[in-house]
Amino acid sequence: MAEARIGLVGLGVMGANLALNIADKGFPVAVHNRRTSVIHDFIGKAGPLAENLVPAEDYAALAAALTPPRAVILMVPAGGPVDSVIEALTPHLDTGDIIVDAGNADFNETRRREAALRDEGLRFVGMGVSGGAEGARHGPSIMVGGAEAAYAEIAEVVESIAARYQDTPCAAHLGPDGAGHFVKTVHNGIEYADMQMIAEIYGLLRHGDGRSTDSIAELFHGWNQGPLQSYLVEITAKVLATADPETGQPMVDVILDSAGQKGTGRWTVVEALKLGQSPMAIEAAVAARSWSAEKALRETGEGLLSPQDAPETGPRVLDGDLERGLLAARIIGYAQGFWLLSAASEEFDWSLDLARVAEIWRAGCIIRSSLLDDIAQAFRGELPGGALILAPAFVRMLRDSVSALRRVVAAAAVSGQPVPALSAALAYYDTMRQARGTAALIQGQRDFFGSHGFVRVDTGEADQHGPWGA
Amino acid sequence: MAEARIGLVGLGVMGANLALNIADKGFPVAVHNRRTSVIHDFIGKAGPLAENLVPAEDYAALAAALTPPRAVILMVPAGGPVDSVIEALTPHLDTGDIIVDAGNADFNETRRREAALRDEGLRFVGMGVSGGAEGARHGPSIMVGGAEAAYAEIAEVVESIAARYQDTPCAAHLGPDGAGHFVKTVHNGIEYADMQMIAEIYGLLRHGDGRSTDSIAELFHGWNQGPLQSYLVEITAKVLATADPETGQPMVDVILDSAGQKGTGRWTVVEALKLGQSPMAIEAAVAARSWSAEKALRETGEGLLSPQDAPETGPRVLDGDLERGLLAARIIGYAQGFWLLSAASEEFDWSLDLARVAEIWRAGCIIRSSLLDDIAQAFRGELPGGALILAPAFVRMLRDSVSALRRVVAAAAVSGQPVPALSAALAYYDTMRQARGTAALIQGQRDFFGSHGFVRVDTGEADQHGPWGA
Repeated sequence: MAEARIGLVGLGVMGANLALNIADKGFPVAVHNRRTSVIHDFIGKAGPLAENLVPAEDYAALAAALTPPRAVILMVPAGGPVDSVIEALTPHLDTGDIIVDAGNADFNETRRREAALRDEGLRFVGMGVSGGAEGARHGPSIMVGGAEAAYAEIAEVVESIAARYQDTPCAAHLGPDGAGHFVKTVHNGIEYADMQMIAEIYGLLRHGDGRSTDSIAELFHGWNQGPLQSYLVEITAKVLATADPETGQPMVDVILDSAGQKGTGRWTVVEALKLGQSPMAIEAAVAARSWSAEKALRETGEGLLSPQDAPETGPRVLDGDLERGLLAARIIGYAQGFWLLSAASEEFDWSLDLARVAEIWRAGCIIRSSLLDDIAQAFRGELPGGALILAPAFVRMLRDSVSALRRVVAAAAVSGQPVPALSAALAYYDTMRQARGTAALIQGQRDFFGSHGFVRVDTGEADQHGPWGA
Repeated sequence: MAEARIGLVGLGVMGANLALNIADKGFPVAVHNRRTSVIHDFIGKAGPLAENLVPAEDYAALAAALTPPRAVILMVPAGGPVDSVIEALTPHLDTGDIIVDAGNADFNETRRREAALRDEGLRFVGMGVSGGAEGARHGPSIMVGGAEAAYAEIAEVVESIAARYQDTPCAAHLGPDGAGHFVKTVHNGIEYADMQMIAEIYGLLRHGDGRSTDSIAELFHGWNQGPLQSYLVEITAKVLATADPETGQPMVDVILDSAGQKGTGRWTVVEALKLGQSPMAIEAAVAARSWSAEKALRETGEGLLSPQDAPETGPRVLDGDLERGLLAARIIGYAQGFWLLSAASEEFDWSLDLARVAEIWRAGCIIRSSLLDDIAQAFRGELPGGALILAPAFVRMLRDSVSALRRVVAAAAVSGQPVPALSAALAYYDTMRQARGTAALIQGQRDFFGSHGFVRVDTGEADQHGPWGA
């Protein structure tokens, strides 16, 4: 009795919202959950959407509710649970059926699963979904990896439920196997960097300058009308403007300053390192979260380490400098993320269309911002070396904003406020501005103590050694 | 015909020097090499030491030359070659015999090999050796992991060939299985950070201030008489003072500014991230090497990106600031390395004696420096939170030097010289000085968009949510 267009396993917050979104777009969806009581509770509360929700008590019922080639979306915790569901589900599927993992999978696992299921005649799609619960319900950004023909079977549903930027759905097939999950991982890495940079600017205003949360909220609210326009700046203003109903204090002051990590930021960095890449703005953000968890150490540190020096002659930093400095750093954070995507695309032969990636991030996802339209255009146009910071539009934007970032980093250094991500972004920019850097000294040292050899600049000969003598 | 005290496989630069060192200390050593012609060439050139060198044309001969429990040192390239030698060698060994991997192994592989050989009744020792070719010949620093009883069999030889700090050999059994190779990996990570920090100071002097290599060499030479005394500062002075015999130019100017990596720096960071650690000074050094390899991009970047701004009102930086700033950053780099060691020790149940680690790094290895004696003492004494930067002696040293680091980082930011490692070190220090950081904002954002929850500071309750509203 095939009555549903698509199946969905896992009715947690994300899965339930995704199912409602699908039903809302007019597609009957068969839903299953490990604890089956959840299924009926969910449908019972779905109101008029219930008519598009088909309960499936077990995998046999789920398979029976679908017409081959069946497509089943999994929204279960990444790792073991995905493998368990695949193992239980596949006996009920037929050749050509499609399993779609919509969780935050490690793309290496997606590659493994795709290959294994392909051997069994099934098709596996790794689908990164960003936008939180709200996005899942009303329009997330969807990054798809897997066989193109498999995506074609589900494209109608996926593109209906995705966010829209103007009239374009923020969903796309980006490449084979793990491409979608990798892009989602890097999305989260960029998100980490952006959140950390915002937190550093907040720290300068709050701890450095002693401003109130309300006044900082206003500042971010204002910035959100300009080039920093973005979901993260928007919600920063909202978070800072929120009072704790219990104490009346600013909500942010009631929250423990130890940041959680679900792992995607760290994954981004580990995968980057494996590819020989160092997206340091993201690394700094991961570092800042790790360090925030060392609460006891910081408490001891505050008592022991030298109090902030009497302010030196640091540069004067205006609010406009903070705004433009954050913009410069944000551009560099995005640039490092996209550079990593191009390295992965080359390594795994994905032929990622980076303009398309930027386009599907313009709405629905956490890092949506006005900058992404500029990024998409940059990737569609002339792009020296394939590097975003060298696109004409970004060269101009950085020319107008990097001097502000310099003042912000210098002022923070002198006044004792930590700015790991902002300073990492600046260090990258300044490195990329130098045709001739300082690594020759490192090569000299390495040759001195380890005979590692170097390349001569004049002749291009490799494996040269210095006459270091005694 | 057992005639040798120990065996050694692999007569490359490191292996040959290690064999000569062993022979020089009076221990007969049986030597084998895959290309057997190398064995006789080596012994032929060994002069009077040849009498302590026993050629072994194959593994059977090598085994026959040793008395059980036999001990055979492998000095072959890390990875596959180690497994190949083990596979070929083990049939000739007896229960209780010992294989010592003296290469730069990934400690995860050492753990795997140790367990596998233990199952076969053999003993496997992972031995990190630092000091380059010169160290291998005349006294390296030796970091040993494996069963204590296995080390006892080879301790006499190992401690004879090791470097000496005053009268103490710079060799020690540090813990089981991969402990020695892990410590060696972190040693190299600290080395990366230290080299990068030195290169950044060089960049400020050379590119920022336009000084000659000779004058910078003199500066480093002078610093090597003070608190920065270390092998790396010493050889930096020597490298910078060296002229190219072919062109007469400073040698460093003839070297291509793309730094090589053999992987141990990157390993350090990946293993750190797996442990939830972020030793950002090391990450920055790995990043700088990666970025240095993007030569073409930097050449395009120099032409396109905004020329250095007209100097802002940055702080005035004296030579003494560079010296003290480098000292502060170096201390923080070491502190991050040792903090990582303590995290690994806890994770793998190694009970690492960090004072002992510092002690065996005082001579023989690349990061030997006067600071290591202070570090050893700090770990022997009162150490709040187990963190080096909080040891009384280091709190004092940092109090005297961090303000200089602030000026250096600020001046670099304003003048456009990249200082990724120096600024990363400062960011860590300033983070650890704040009992209350900015991560509460990040937790607020995460709860806003993903309902991730937070802990309330007043009640300690977890899984709290904000009334973020619309």
